Amino acid sequence: MRDAEVVSFRKARLEDLRAILELLNDGKLGNVLERIEDPMPKVYTDAFAVLSADPNQLLLVGEIEGRIVATLQLTFIPGIAHQGAWRAQVEAVRVVRDLRGRRIGEAMMRHVVALARERNCALVQLTTNKARDDAQRFYRRLGFTASHEGMKLRLT
Amino acid sequence: MRDAEVVSFRKARLEDLRAILELLNDGKLGNVLERIEDPMPKVYTDAFAVLSADPNQLLLVGEIEGRIVATLQLTFIPGIAHQGAWRAQVEAVRVVRDLRGRRIGEAMMRHVVALARERNCALVQLTTNKARDDAQRFYRRLGFTASHEGMKLRLT
Repeated sequence: MRDAEVVSFRKARLEDLRAILELLNDGKLGNVLERIEDPMPKVYTDAFAVLSADPNQLLLVGEIEGRIVATLQLTFIPGIAHQGAWRAQVEAVRVVRDLRGRRIGEAMMRHVVALARERNCALVQLTTNKARDDAQRFYRRLGFTASHEGMKLRLT
Repeated sequence: MRDAEVVSFRKARLEDLRAILELLNDGKLGNVLERIEDPMPKVYTDAFAVLSADPNQLLLVGEIEGRIVATLQLTFIPGIAHQGAWRAQVEAVRVVRDLRGRRIGEAMMRHVVALARERNCALVQLTTNKARDDAQRFYRRLGFTASHEGMKLRLT
């Protein structure tokens, strides 16, 4: 069976954190590396607790036979604009290297769109580094429009 | 005195909603128009209540002598990535038409950066429609980098 058909998506659990950090470290574009250490650094368990306690945050993992193969963070953002529309925002998307090109990312994004519809979001949005041509093509194929400039100001 | 020197910024109050909607409607790029009606439509008072109750949301207004002259929405987003870094995200930025070009927007964004530092955010981020050349120049001048594509998928 195809990987995209057997992957299941669920809210991350504390014991998934190490696998999530490994996914985050693979495919970095010169950013801060995550600290994969034992015991798990407190910055991550603290961040995990904050995400878990917030009903507008969902740290998602994709799993195949007990292996974490994909992750992303979904944030539901309320707003006044567009007649009080909610937005679903996607960050930190990763698929494990040896299973790329097998539509797991696509399955995960379709799962995100379904969750966003459940929450009555008017929009799904994300930014992707301009250096990642393949990611832009991927999101366009899923119906996203590159209508905006994604602007960042680093403070640290 | 220059307008940028006399504008003060604070959390929006319910009675500011009408002025905020008027600001949102001015300068739309073919998006949904806001409903400026009396009584205030429930979608907005509901949205305002959601924002007010969430410590990670700040609906900001800029005021000069009791007049609301600018607004934006700031969202503080926790995360696992970048060693548990928080992001400050800016949406729905508007300055009243007759006071544009007087550095009120700049003062408001500097206020945002200060708030983001107070909250230990690693990054301030936003997306701006590619049709708004002037907005891109504005954010670049403030130190933002247009490093990312801002991708949107409308669900409604």
